[in-house]
Amino acid sequence: MKKYTDMTREELQAEYEVVSAQYEQLKSLGLHLDMSRGKPNPAQLDLSMGMLRMDPFTLIHTRKGTDVRNYGELAGVDEAKELFAELLGVGTNQVIMGGQSSLNLMYDTVVKALTLGVYGGKEPWGKQGKLKFLCPVPGYDRHFAICQEFGIEMINIPMTEDGPDMELVRNYVETDPSVKGIWCVPKYSNPQGITYSDDTVRAFAALKPAADDFRIFWDNAYLIHDHGRTPDSLLNIFDACKAYGSEDMVYEFISTSKVTFSGAGVAVIASSEANTKHLLKQMGIQTIGYDKINQLRHVRFFKNAQGMRDHMEAHAALIRPRFDCVLGYLEQELTARGIGSWRNPNGGYFISYDGMKGSAKRCVQLCKEAGVVLTSAGATYPYGNDPEDKNIRIAPSFPGIEELAQCARLFCVVQRLVSLELLLA
Amino acid sequence: MKKYTDMTREELQAEYEVVSAQYEQLKSLGLHLDMSRGKPNPAQLDLSMGMLRMDPFTLIHTRKGTDVRNYGELAGVDEAKELFAELLGVGTNQVIMGGQSSLNLMYDTVVKALTLGVYGGKEPWGKQGKLKFLCPVPGYDRHFAICQEFGIEMINIPMTEDGPDMELVRNYVETDPSVKGIWCVPKYSNPQGITYSDDTVRAFAALKPAADDFRIFWDNAYLIHDHGRTPDSLLNIFDACKAYGSEDMVYEFISTSKVTFSGAGVAVIASSEANTKHLLKQMGIQTIGYDKINQLRHVRFFKNAQGMRDHMEAHAALIRPRFDCVLGYLEQELTARGIGSWRNPNGGYFISYDGMKGSAKRCVQLCKEAGVVLTSAGATYPYGNDPEDKNIRIAPSFPGIEELAQCARLFCVVQRLVSLELLLA
Repeated sequence: MKKYTDMTREELQAEYEVVSAQYEQLKSLGLHLDMSRGKPNPAQLDLSMGMLRMDPFTLIHTRKGTDVRNYGELAGVDEAKELFAELLGVGTNQVIMGGQSSLNLMYDTVVKALTLGVYGGKEPWGKQGKLKFLCPVPGYDRHFAICQEFGIEMINIPMTEDGPDMELVRNYVETDPSVKGIWCVPKYSNPQGITYSDDTVRAFAALKPAADDFRIFWDNAYLIHDHGRTPDSLLNIFDACKAYGSEDMVYEFISTSKVTFSGAGVAVIASSEANTKHLLKQMGIQTIGYDKINQLRHVRFFKNAQGMRDHMEAHAALIRPRFDCVLGYLEQELTARGIGSWRNPNGGYFISYDGMKGSAKRCVQLCKEAGVVLTSAGATYPYGNDPEDKNIRIAPSFPGIEELAQCARLFCVVQRLVSLELLLA
Repeated sequence: MKKYTDMTREELQAEYEVVSAQYEQLKSLGLHLDMSRGKPNPAQLDLSMGMLRMDPFTLIHTRKGTDVRNYGELAGVDEAKELFAELLGVGTNQVIMGGQSSLNLMYDTVVKALTLGVYGGKEPWGKQGKLKFLCPVPGYDRHFAICQEFGIEMINIPMTEDGPDMELVRNYVETDPSVKGIWCVPKYSNPQGITYSDDTVRAFAALKPAADDFRIFWDNAYLIHDHGRTPDSLLNIFDACKAYGSEDMVYEFISTSKVTFSGAGVAVIASSEANTKHLLKQMGIQTIGYDKINQLRHVRFFKNAQGMRDHMEAHAALIRPRFDCVLGYLEQELTARGIGSWRNPNGGYFISYDGMKGSAKRCVQLCKEAGVVLTSAGATYPYGNDPEDKNIRIAPSFPGIEELAQCARLFCVVQRLVSLELLLA
């Protein structure tokens, strides 16, 4: 195999004929597959069926005797708060059990900041004119959608191997009071699978925001979602904040959507005690409490944080071969040809693939025409606008291995084809 | 027994001595009871334990094969939408399954109207300056708290035996474009237990709001919560709206908080198809979907709307004796003495008691001093301000019958005492 960039025009043309034929052949298979979203596969969901098989009488009362079937306990039952406090390495008074969706908690927290204000803020964000959020890119489209929905201007922050470019972050946060937040997926970032280095986490903790109501949205979606040979480790941001007295700056989110059930897990927001108290006062107007039976179900199932970590090993065993399959194809089909770049992450749900400039939309389109749905090109950037049109988020978790192999084969053929088109143009 | 208002001052004084002694005696019992909230009693919650005992494999797939354990189905699973569409008498496309709290859905719907706007509205409520909501009084404190949280001015609308004073409602709604909504509990209203008459429902449907973004918040919390000998019937507001083409004006809410589990039921918003589509677009930014396993649990448990109605008969059998107990004491202790007024509702969770002007706060305080917690005086009015300080919401559902009898005895003694204080003052 030869690097495409080393080929003569004639060689490229010949290769184009070959790859076109391969693409047409794959297209003729009539595939119908979806790699667009980070959904667990059914075997992963089966791992938690024990949660639905519990003695119902163990799901009635908390340790202190509260009947969880009834109203009350806005912040969640003690046992559940303790489980997640242990997992996150924070105090029980820093934990609020939400509903089943951390996205919902993030959205609600932004909305409360906009309409009511955050702890220590002088007035609601929504009364302060233009608002900005920093968005490490590539990133998670649903974070960006929240900002877009409420007219919050998004500023791209390039990601490095250590996390967001902290020089740039510091510059924005410390000089512009209209910068109110930043979206972070600090461990196994969506989509690159990058874990923020200790220095990056410390740099976050050390920020001195120009705004008195700036918040870091620390979406720790993949905290325990290791599947690599050497799991990454992430510094506890609240520990880092202690040195700077900056705990009020952080909202941390986590859920069991990819631990138990994506549609029926539990979600958590952890924050400083002052933030937690403030949020609970606001949440007390919104609801009398979230689903406590489901909280207790999770507690009884996992028992403690180690129980959750052990459970994740079974997930890893199902996830790893899928990553290996896709990464194997990329390596085998593209590396020697000098096409694209990607990381081999130690956890998380995605492979972030960068093709040639101007290739992503065309690639997604050609895959779609051959029956494989990928995440929309651009989705990993605010406003759906990937300035170089090169990033594609590959989500290998859901399909079966054989289907996935077909997807990966198709993806590689399409990458070659689009690269050839660009080189020949 | 003699009416207090017919007593001479000497008779009042003598009665006061007797009743004071009774109060002190009850106080010495060291009661410790709570009648403040409309909470189901444990026996009611036991009625739905079958929901936690289901074969877990019946909780995985919907009829069309969707794995409910995974992400997706923002509006809820078809079966659940059908169940509530049947119950509410609306189309399946008019139903969205929310989380487990209808209060949360109401709050979120208000917030979306404030920040993003409603279907057909020119701009978000929050950009239109002063906002007003009409509040039939006495009413539900948690409705009022949402308005207060967001600085929406609340206007008291007196309740009649047929529902809110519709002359007044029409006047406000049709002349003042800053009136954006009205809170209604149309069946077995909280706290009076009044069901809106057909004429009242039709008058709602016939409203021609001055604002193009006015909404009726139709909190049908007690739609199937009959426990009287002759259940009330409520006209279907969407049917009534058809005659006027006013379906977009109504958001209807319901939940199973007092059908299955208060902390782990399902909540629903029903609206016009146009509203539903608009809301789903907004909700799609907030979450990927609500707990679908719990939706399926409810569907499997009830099968259909008749299954829910049948289930409610078992609730009624537990609720009715509690109402009879309290109403019996009120009748026996207060009627002949000419103290107070109240209704004997055919359903719902409350007895609304009106004492003498200026009696409510004192009554709640004296009950509290004797160990019985009632809903705060004033809570049934916006801003916690009962202009005549006379209304008390009695919530008989939670305590056991014997405890309830003690509460009711105490309540009657306190009512007599406070009335005597006022008559002697």
